[in-house]
Amino acid sequence: MSIAYNLITKCPETGARLGVLKTAHGSVQTPAFMPVATQGSVKTITSPELEQMQTGMILGNCYHLYLRPGVEIIARSGGLHKFINWRNGIITDSGGFQIFSLGGMRKIDDNGVTFTSHIDGSAHYLTPERVTRVQNMLGADIAMVLDHCPAYPSSYEEVLRAVERTTRWAWRCRQAHLRTDQAQFAVIQGGVYADLRLRSAKDLMAMDFHGYAVGGLSVGEPKDLMYEALDTLGPILPEHKPRYLMGVGSPDALLEGVKRGIDIFDCVLPTRIARNGRVMTADGYLTIRNAVYAADLSPLDERCACPVCRGYSRAYIRHLLNAGEISGMRLTTYHNLFYLAALMEEIRQAIARGDFGRYYREKSPILKKYYGGVV
Amino acid sequence: MSIAYNLITKCPETGARLGVLKTAHGSVQTPAFMPVATQGSVKTITSPELEQMQTGMILGNCYHLYLRPGVEIIARSGGLHKFINWRNGIITDSGGFQIFSLGGMRKIDDNGVTFTSHIDGSAHYLTPERVTRVQNMLGADIAMVLDHCPAYPSSYEEVLRAVERTTRWAWRCRQAHLRTDQAQFAVIQGGVYADLRLRSAKDLMAMDFHGYAVGGLSVGEPKDLMYEALDTLGPILPEHKPRYLMGVGSPDALLEGVKRGIDIFDCVLPTRIARNGRVMTADGYLTIRNAVYAADLSPLDERCACPVCRGYSRAYIRHLLNAGEISGMRLTTYHNLFYLAALMEEIRQAIARGDFGRYYREKSPILKKYYGGVV
Repeated sequence: MSIAYNLITKCPETGARLGVLKTAHGSVQTPAFMPVATQGSVKTITSPELEQMQTGMILGNCYHLYLRPGVEIIARSGGLHKFINWRNGIITDSGGFQIFSLGGMRKIDDNGVTFTSHIDGSAHYLTPERVTRVQNMLGADIAMVLDHCPAYPSSYEEVLRAVERTTRWAWRCRQAHLRTDQAQFAVIQGGVYADLRLRSAKDLMAMDFHGYAVGGLSVGEPKDLMYEALDTLGPILPEHKPRYLMGVGSPDALLEGVKRGIDIFDCVLPTRIARNGRVMTADGYLTIRNAVYAADLSPLDERCACPVCRGYSRAYIRHLLNAGEISGMRLTTYHNLFYLAALMEEIRQAIARGDFGRYYREKSPILKKYYGGVV
Repeated sequence: MSIAYNLITKCPETGARLGVLKTAHGSVQTPAFMPVATQGSVKTITSPELEQMQTGMILGNCYHLYLRPGVEIIARSGGLHKFINWRNGIITDSGGFQIFSLGGMRKIDDNGVTFTSHIDGSAHYLTPERVTRVQNMLGADIAMVLDHCPAYPSSYEEVLRAVERTTRWAWRCRQAHLRTDQAQFAVIQGGVYADLRLRSAKDLMAMDFHGYAVGGLSVGEPKDLMYEALDTLGPILPEHKPRYLMGVGSPDALLEGVKRGIDIFDCVLPTRIARNGRVMTADGYLTIRNAVYAADLSPLDERCACPVCRGYSRAYIRHLLNAGEISGMRLTTYHNLFYLAALMEEIRQAIARGDFGRYYREKSPILKKYYGGVV
């Protein structure tokens, strides 16, 4: 057995779902947000801190780990969990998104992708089989298929070709997947074209994956188009399998995703903006480097229960960031991840109470106001 | 009452002392090493981690905090402890060393020092009175007097002038010191000239400070000359007051300092080298970025009990550092501070057992071999 998803309850008014995703490395209460450990580390943060925030699952990037430090050393150490000292769940993405967004001199054909490393310019050739093999070696709880993620905007014809290729590659990944203790999720493409989304989903569902991710969104399209795509998919995805929206971590979009039946999310947003001094609060984004906070002795967020907000002032955190102190980035990162963990907990409690519809109507305009207009 | 030093026992063979330094913010078992929080943060590390390592006292830099974020905001937040969220002991240095080593366009006269900020080139004038006032406002448990720290090498005449100025300034600092809940330590100068060391110590002891620091060492002189200076001072310093050797954090020098009666030490060495990927181990320094560790799944130090050595491999930490991951610097920093904390604990236990003489004879050649030749 690889994973098991138990659907606990559904919102009577919306598509929101409360569930538990069980893995060989503990259980994740869903809906959940997963911090991103791009290179095998959630930037500035360590495992005990993630556990303090009840983080059940993180995302590792296959593309990055494949290039550096390399898969062999991770496999030899006993797998990614052991290598990075993390005992809860891990998903590894396939690297598809990174190959299409980071790799230089990319050449794609139906068999696979040739690209050059963004680190040292070395040439690499990845096929669906090889990507699956690499993820088998990394040994995360959930592996992703190699997909073709077109940029936004792309023409209908381009997206159609990406959908068809994603389907063919998904089947090859499915055949190449050898570990019975590792789940494998497919990635639904289709851009903002409803019929292509449906086609991609149906093609992939026919192959009976352990779960389904929605890819190719949050790549620059207006948020409303992302929500439309989720509206299209919500009713047809299998009820008893987990649903994963890739690359989404903005508070407003998390709420909208949950409303449309998404169970798990990942995004570098909370950690990346934190390192630049931007934090999420009950009153929206706060850019802590601004001079206005130089003598502000209040916490980042008065209403936040995290140890950063209980122990440190805006003035101190601003000082640390301005003085180039790494601890400043630690504190803002911790806070942002805690903020999202607390938001997801609030959402789960609303679904559990059977009250998500009302919660959504109250919370959605607030989050849209504070987080809707910006990425 | 500001602080109290209780001498628990002395080594029957050497000058080593076991004691407890009590402050308004807890007690420090001595001999102890104090991590340096230059700008109000022990670089990459937070307070709970320092507490995990039983850190009883840290050092803050008056010069840095005065320039950025400024003393007023720290005072207004309730003092340095509150501002940086640290509940154990703090010493602030006077900035003397930084003024002489960092400040540009320095002009020194008997009244004080004019210097330009290394941050923005702004001009500043600090006198003994002003430095004392700044430290009163910071509110550390122990404040240091403004001293004149000459470079190494300096002529006898130069060092003599520095000693005389240090004495005059110490007296003015003593007069200006207003807080009864804050201790004040003098800084003994004299370079490597035994008669000047004795003169400086006697001058300052006549003013009855709460404790005595040995400054102007570990500034480039051969280690043997540093030990000679400590040999000179050991017998004459008051037995029931704490003795602080400034700027020393190399394992071999810590042991030699303890042997000569030093109670507390500070140095940026363990944290600075850690960020460059250099760690202290039972087998000496290890430069973890070296290619030889790329596939090394053993911990930084097999014999170390710290969470870093219990959870992470050399290969992973090397990967983090090479990939520019901040967590790598966190792990090496934590390990180095833990290594020194464990060394000091081992030393304290040897003194407590009445066994320090034997311990010293066994340990000293090993530490000299591994750490004696390098800074």
